[in-house]
Amino acid sequence: MKLWSGRFSGATHPALDAINKSIAFDIRLWPYDIRTNRAHAKMLRSVGLLSADELRLLESALDSVEKEFSDGSFEVHESDEDIHMAVERRVTELVGDPGRKLHTARSRNDQVATDVRLFTMDAIGAIREQIRGLVAELIQAAERSIDVVLPAYTHLQPGQPVLLAHHLLAYVEMMRRDDQRLDDAAKRAAVSPLGSGACVGTSLPVDRQMTADLLGFSSISRNSLDGVSDRDFVLETLSALSIVAMHLSRLGEELVVWSSKEFGFCRLGDSVSTGSSMMPQKKNPDGAELIRGKAGRVFASLSGLLTTMKGLPLAYNKDMQEDKEPLFDAVDTVSLSLEMARVTIETLEVDRNRMAAAVSPEVFATDLAELLVLEGLPLRSAHEAVGQLVRLAESLAKTISDLTADEVATAASEGDEPIDIAFVQKLGIEHAIRSKSIVGGTATSEVQTAIDEAKIWSGNAQ
Amino acid sequence: MKLWSGRFSGATHPALDAINKSIAFDIRLWPYDIRTNRAHAKMLRSVGLLSADELRLLESALDSVEKEFSDGSFEVHESDEDIHMAVERRVTELVGDPGRKLHTARSRNDQVATDVRLFTMDAIGAIREQIRGLVAELIQAAERSIDVVLPAYTHLQPGQPVLLAHHLLAYVEMMRRDDQRLDDAAKRAAVSPLGSGACVGTSLPVDRQMTADLLGFSSISRNSLDGVSDRDFVLETLSALSIVAMHLSRLGEELVVWSSKEFGFCRLGDSVSTGSSMMPQKKNPDGAELIRGKAGRVFASLSGLLTTMKGLPLAYNKDMQEDKEPLFDAVDTVSLSLEMARVTIETLEVDRNRMAAAVSPEVFATDLAELLVLEGLPLRSAHEAVGQLVRLAESLAKTISDLTADEVATAASEGDEPIDIAFVQKLGIEHAIRSKSIVGGTATSEVQTAIDEAKIWSGNAQ
Amino acid sequence: MKLWSGRFSGATHPALDAINKSIAFDIRLWPYDIRTNRAHAKMLRSVGLLSADELRLLESALDSVEKEFSDGSFEVHESDEDIHMAVERRVTELVGDPGRKLHTARSRNDQVATDVRLFTMDAIGAIREQIRGLVAELIQAAERSIDVVLPAYTHLQPGQPVLLAHHLLAYVEMMRRDDQRLDDAAKRAAVSPLGSGACVGTSLPVDRQMTADLLGFSSISRNSLDGVSDRDFVLETLSALSIVAMHLSRLGEELVVWSSKEFGFCRLGDSVSTGSSMMPQKKNPDGAELIRGKAGRVFASLSGLLTTMKGLPLAYNKDMQEDKEPLFDAVDTVSLSLEMARVTIETLEVDRNRMAAAVSPEVFATDLAELLVLEGLPLRSAHEAVGQLVRLAESLAKTISDLTADEVATAASEGDEPIDIAFVQKLGIEHAIRSKSIVGGTATSEVQTAIDEAKIWSGNAQ
Amino acid sequence: MKLWSGRFSGATHPALDAINKSIAFDIRLWPYDIRTNRAHAKMLRSVGLLSADELRLLESALDSVEKEFSDGSFEVHESDEDIHMAVERRVTELVGDPGRKLHTARSRNDQVATDVRLFTMDAIGAIREQIRGLVAELIQAAERSIDVVLPAYTHLQPGQPVLLAHHLLAYVEMMRRDDQRLDDAAKRAAVSPLGSGACVGTSLPVDRQMTADLLGFSSISRNSLDGVSDRDFVLETLSALSIVAMHLSRLGEELVVWSSKEFGFCRLGDSVSTGSSMMPQKKNPDGAELIRGKAGRVFASLSGLLTTMKGLPLAYNKDMQEDKEPLFDAVDTVSLSLEMARVTIETLEVDRNRMAAAVSPEVFATDLAELLVLEGLPLRSAHEAVGQLVRLAESLAKTISDLTADEVATAASEGDEPIDIAFVQKLGIEHAIRSKSIVGGTATSEVQTAIDEAKIWSGNAQ
Repeated sequence: MKLWSGRFSGATHPALDAINKSIAFDIRLWPYDIRTNRAHAKMLRSVGLLSADELRLLESALDSVEKEFSDGSFEVHESDEDIHMAVERRVTELVGDPGRKLHTARSRNDQVATDVRLFTMDAIGAIREQIRGLVAELIQAAERSIDVVLPAYTHLQPGQPVLLAHHLLAYVEMMRRDDQRLDDAAKRAAVSPLGSGACVGTSLPVDRQMTADLLGFSSISRNSLDGVSDRDFVLETLSALSIVAMHLSRLGEELVVWSSKEFGFCRLGDSVSTGSSMMPQKKNPDGAELIRGKAGRVFASLSGLLTTMKGLPLAYNKDMQEDKEPLFDAVDTVSLSLEMARVTIETLEVDRNRMAAAVSPEVFATDLAELLVLEGLPLRSAHEAVGQLVRLAESLAKTISDLTADEVATAASEGDEPIDIAFVQKLGIEHAIRSKSIVGGTATSEVQTAIDEAKIWSGNAQ
Repeated sequence: MKLWSGRFSGATHPALDAINKSIAFDIRLWPYDIRTNRAHAKMLRSVGLLSADELRLLESALDSVEKEFSDGSFEVHESDEDIHMAVERRVTELVGDPGRKLHTARSRNDQVATDVRLFTMDAIGAIREQIRGLVAELIQAAERSIDVVLPAYTHLQPGQPVLLAHHLLAYVEMMRRDDQRLDDAAKRAAVSPLGSGACVGTSLPVDRQMTADLLGFSSISRNSLDGVSDRDFVLETLSALSIVAMHLSRLGEELVVWSSKEFGFCRLGDSVSTGSSMMPQKKNPDGAELIRGKAGRVFASLSGLLTTMKGLPLAYNKDMQEDKEPLFDAVDTVSLSLEMARVTIETLEVDRNRMAAAVSPEVFATDLAELLVLEGLPLRSAHEAVGQLVRLAESLAKTISDLTADEVATAASEGDEPIDIAFVQKLGIEHAIRSKSIVGGTATSEVQTAIDEAKIWSGNAQ
Repeated sequence: MKLWSGRFSGATHPALDAINKSIAFDIRLWPYDIRTNRAHAKMLRSVGLLSADELRLLESALDSVEKEFSDGSFEVHESDEDIHMAVERRVTELVGDPGRKLHTARSRNDQVATDVRLFTMDAIGAIREQIRGLVAELIQAAERSIDVVLPAYTHLQPGQPVLLAHHLLAYVEMMRRDDQRLDDAAKRAAVSPLGSGACVGTSLPVDRQMTADLLGFSSISRNSLDGVSDRDFVLETLSALSIVAMHLSRLGEELVVWSSKEFGFCRLGDSVSTGSSMMPQKKNPDGAELIRGKAGRVFASLSGLLTTMKGLPLAYNKDMQEDKEPLFDAVDTVSLSLEMARVTIETLEVDRNRMAAAVSPEVFATDLAELLVLEGLPLRSAHEAVGQLVRLAESLAKTISDLTADEVATAASEGDEPIDIAFVQKLGIEHAIRSKSIVGGTATSEVQTAIDEAKIWSGNAQ
Repeated sequence: MKLWSGRFSGATHPALDAINKSIAFDIRLWPYDIRTNRAHAKMLRSVGLLSADELRLLESALDSVEKEFSDGSFEVHESDEDIHMAVERRVTELVGDPGRKLHTARSRNDQVATDVRLFTMDAIGAIREQIRGLVAELIQAAERSIDVVLPAYTHLQPGQPVLLAHHLLAYVEMMRRDDQRLDDAAKRAAVSPLGSGACVGTSLPVDRQMTADLLGFSSISRNSLDGVSDRDFVLETLSALSIVAMHLSRLGEELVVWSSKEFGFCRLGDSVSTGSSMMPQKKNPDGAELIRGKAGRVFASLSGLLTTMKGLPLAYNKDMQEDKEPLFDAVDTVSLSLEMARVTIETLEVDRNRMAAAVSPEVFATDLAELLVLEGLPLRSAHEAVGQLVRLAESLAKTISDLTADEVATAASEGDEPIDIAFVQKLGIEHAIRSKSIVGGTATSEVQTAIDEAKIWSGNAQ
């Protein structure tokens, strides 16, 4: 029998049961429901709505139920619509009447909001731990490769030489913003709705601050209608997770491209690759591809829930039950992806020779233009002159460093001085890297500073 | 040991196993994998790649595996990456060497595409059956209520009187388009990719037409690269299902609004309503709300997979493994929603009095304007005059049918004749309904014709 | 001639021009491009890359260009790919060679990121102002209606009585979270990428902190690759705006439902309603509907850009040019919607009688159950007994307040005391409201406190 | 003055005007509005609601208005809410009273639906033309490169050798499905809603079939409520366009990867590349990147409109005005992308040597396994043996074709015969291509057949 069935006659249609019951997925909330029940019972005792004996019985029953969930012996009944009803039903089986008092001064509307907030706070904490784990791996990889140079790409075309460490640290920056965003989301999740009741609060003398404190919330919600119908914290978490997933998809793409035979910048270990059922020679970067591809489902969780929330009148509507599956799926997916990324970086073998070989002389063109600017040439003239040099070299099937002094001298914007080959001769990887000593640039000293700073952050921050 | 592990040393990292293995969800494809294997084995025999004995053994093993799946005794092994490897592994356990020939001239790339297409064709067939079931219910409800009148709403404001049957038939029209779209999607799914191999076909002498015929495909794919990397049929199915879900969300919204106390147009039976854990008087339209809210997740399945497919180079990439969960989820969700909608319509109690009471005289305003047009008044003058009449009535706190002849006469556009009260007196539900005898209009005769036509369609079509 | 054309021969194909040129939409960034150019030029002077004369000329040219944009006289040339090239081209026309130095030590990659960040910071500031404007209107409406009571709805079914003011304040809570989220987004936008160059910084001796300070950024980016390829700030802004739009869509839905004839809870003024081209009596809540419907396009801006960013390798890729249109459209759409919402609340006429009439006795059922709980009855017994009372009343076509003492006494859970009619007689709006004096509850005192607190926030916060 | 303002007093608030007016974007529908008006007027005359003189005047006015739009002289007035009101207003200015009859028996609800359907039908026709144009270019490129071989990739790892022509034809297959889907969408768009009026039809004696015939619709809608509230045809068109955009994004990605220095498979001409404002040597594939990146906005148009339509009650709601901008944007974006793709393929210079060089001996591994299968070895044994061969070769830093007979003989599954080096010696590009003579395989004969068949389709189909 359903616990709300007083005014009903007849049974629920199987179609409604099938579409309505959430126990199949919200059973995952059991640790939070136990916690919420414990805090709520303590509070009911403190305001006199339970006797000391009743509280003792309830606490003991909640201990038993927790044990049953932990050891897998909890039995879900046909009539258990959701985890909340299941727990209350079982507690009542165990201790009788006090169990029938457990839901006093509370509705599933505020209870489920409370449980989901607690889940979200925990999940964000765990994801942030994983982010730090990936950052630590990226930092180590950066340290190992502080002298490895490759072209920085824009438009997947080689741009200018860059330290691999600098490239890896770009992902550290992304992860740091992700960490901040998740922290902000967790702060806004840490507001207790318990006491909002079904929608207007309760006439019973509850102590909202007490349950909030017991559960680790930092404040209580200010409006009961909002308390039961607010899912912003889920949406904000999904947004933050979507951006994490987007970052990881970029990393995944790079790993796929870099581990292609043609780039050959890295080799993925056997342990993070898979084979083909048909092509015996294949070693495929499945992990990197899935990091990339799974971004789609994380974004979908966000857009799906936004759509579901669109146009719902106040306060609670059943549509909102659709909040949990996308949240769970996004958390699980991002967690899997972070671990896959961490392991991939950990086991990554970089081919520094292939990377170095990709640094063709053309990528020093910008350095050349900037040397000319330092001589007083307007940037546009310098850019044009060097552009002509590049075109000339191409037409001669040479690189710019193979051009003769005379050839170099032919490239000049109208009215400008011919280029002295001495400038071309200054070019090279060493000059390229050393000269980018601007804050955030790729000079080794700057990159080392960034590594040190990132280490402090990832070790101490939180 | 993985079946592709010849060139590999060492084990797969748990992180890769966790993100990569699909057996947890693609196990659902087992009936299709069995079918595909049967057809493939028959074909291998017919082209001489299997002996008659080997085929017999394989067929018997496939029968056993099918039975194991059917009765729940199939055991998934730790090493089973996906349903395809699980079936092949089990067949080989049962019959030895012939099992090691089962994957001849085939890759998982074409095999999984084949299985998913077969699933899609079946799933569409089942959804179309459900659409017809809902249509049948809508038609019956329309027949039962052929004399029930309510206002047609635009902008949720009463527009003009309409038969409830006409309103219900609007949903029949939507469902008919859905049925067509799904049929088109199924046609494009019915193309066999089997024989595309990993990406370029196979050098073994297979008979693609034979497997296609055995599996019920209507044609074979024309390009092997496309054969393994095409997921259009999933996307098109998700699009068609999204539009179904959108239609159902509109129905869900109407049921929610109509069953509100304030509209009171219908009552949802106890069997399709739920109660509140806190508010004893509540009877909530959870089913209708979920029909509405679940549209979000169906749309999300579509947008997620589109995103995942974006920017993937040819041919197969592991990202594409993300096709199955959104497909399964969308099929299941739309199926649940269709059944919920059908049951809700089946058990719907309409309150014809509340509907009639909502037909206030203002909704005859358009009829009045059209009567004036028939007298030769330009439409814009008629519209304006009737608008002024409405405003006058409002200012007198009357309805337009309570206005006196003099009052009626005051409303006229400049230069136009005053309105004769006789026109106002003609107005009413009967006139309103009868006069809309245009094709597709709400006159009873038109609606009855539409019912008859829809019955023929839903009974015979397919 | 394009400013980057040194190494190119031949003209750009019209198809590339058509898909590539962004001047049609990024012209909107002109104020930020002028600001960025001014700061950049000052910095170039301070590090010696410009002479004092050159700076003076550039500043005067930038003043002229600003004036041309302001008064609409700026002429876009065919060759102007984007706003940045247009401004540089015009500056060079005006002052010659110094113009050719303006782009020194900079790439469009860092320049455009800088401009878009400045735009975002400004846009968020303006949206937050509008949020405060709407909040102020909601607070005033709440104060005007502090004694207006309506049912609080869950599932669009009446739940328990609530003050309209309490209902309005729920939206204030949403807006406050929106304001916080936007503030967080703005903080993360306020990081200067200028100096990141194309991807690795520059070898010229620029002063990144100086331009950051001049432009009002609070810090500078720590990694040049990330500096040019980070669009998190756009995505985070779009996320925050999507949640604003979701909130407004809920308000829009409520305004549409409440202004329906059947609810009749409010009347939208003529100034915020529109008519029908065919039905003279119509007064439609177009503004409220558009507030609701436009949520779709805001969500789409977010999901579109997430998709575009998926799987892009570092650093800048041309795909990222697709960041601006969704950002502009979301900002404009949310701005329009906030203003429409504000005006609608400002002009809203509430019908307190229709609201009061909707408070039928059944909505006191929870109060009754809670009164029984205070007497010591277990909640579940109380809930069930009151549920039976409701069912009994329904079966007698009465409300629960019309039941006789004997009738009331029949409703009791097995083994529990019959209900004393005295409890039923205590029920009523006054009891209902007053008894919800819990923090966040709908008691008048609590609501007044919430109003006062919200006033302080909306007046002082920022 | 607004044409619906009879019952209104006072002006519309600027906020409502700003959010509500659609003339800024729906002005694009003018050719369809003129056509609809012409057909409607003819029909009104034929049923006697206009005199011959009135029709003549209206037709002449519509001619004038068409001319004004064509030559850019049409003046939009402040009061013109949308294109429909603008045209009617202007016609009335030109001919007076007959203009005031133009809107007889019609609502903007059915008029706008009609115009948008006509636009959609035309737009789909134009897109399909462009698809054929791209297909023609792909076929020509295939013919030019019928002897060019590269590795087919899965997971971006080389799989087996393939003809470039076969690869290009994979895109032809995609485009053919796109063409079919668009054709299906156009068929479902070709249903005339004209005559549905505001929502229930009209009491005036209109001839719906006549206007449908005049406008080129293939049938008329069967239900007036559905007629004005159906936007399936827009959603279906957006779905079909999204899949087109997804296909093009894959092509874009391949062009970007192939034109990277590291792959070097192709060179994009100067006319379809752009330079960098900072790096003089750069030649960037902006066109290909935008083809890839713009998929995001097309998907967004679809998901945005699905969201907007979610949960709207029947019949017309103002939210639906949000259908036009995503439709226009998706049509324009896909059109730009198709043209960019066509031009890129047209000007593509393939480097056949780089492609050939990428065909390393390992990609013959599958051929070797299949040769062993033809000898009777079970596939799994063959796969494993060849896998070991690959691993051995790698460990010796050789390719499999460099292994000695003894080395080859070491690779065998337990209990299987050693591999004879004769099989390894058979391997090579020629064998690889020729042996894939299965339907849909990459054998030259098969590819030539596919080219011929595609030519017939692209020339004759429609």
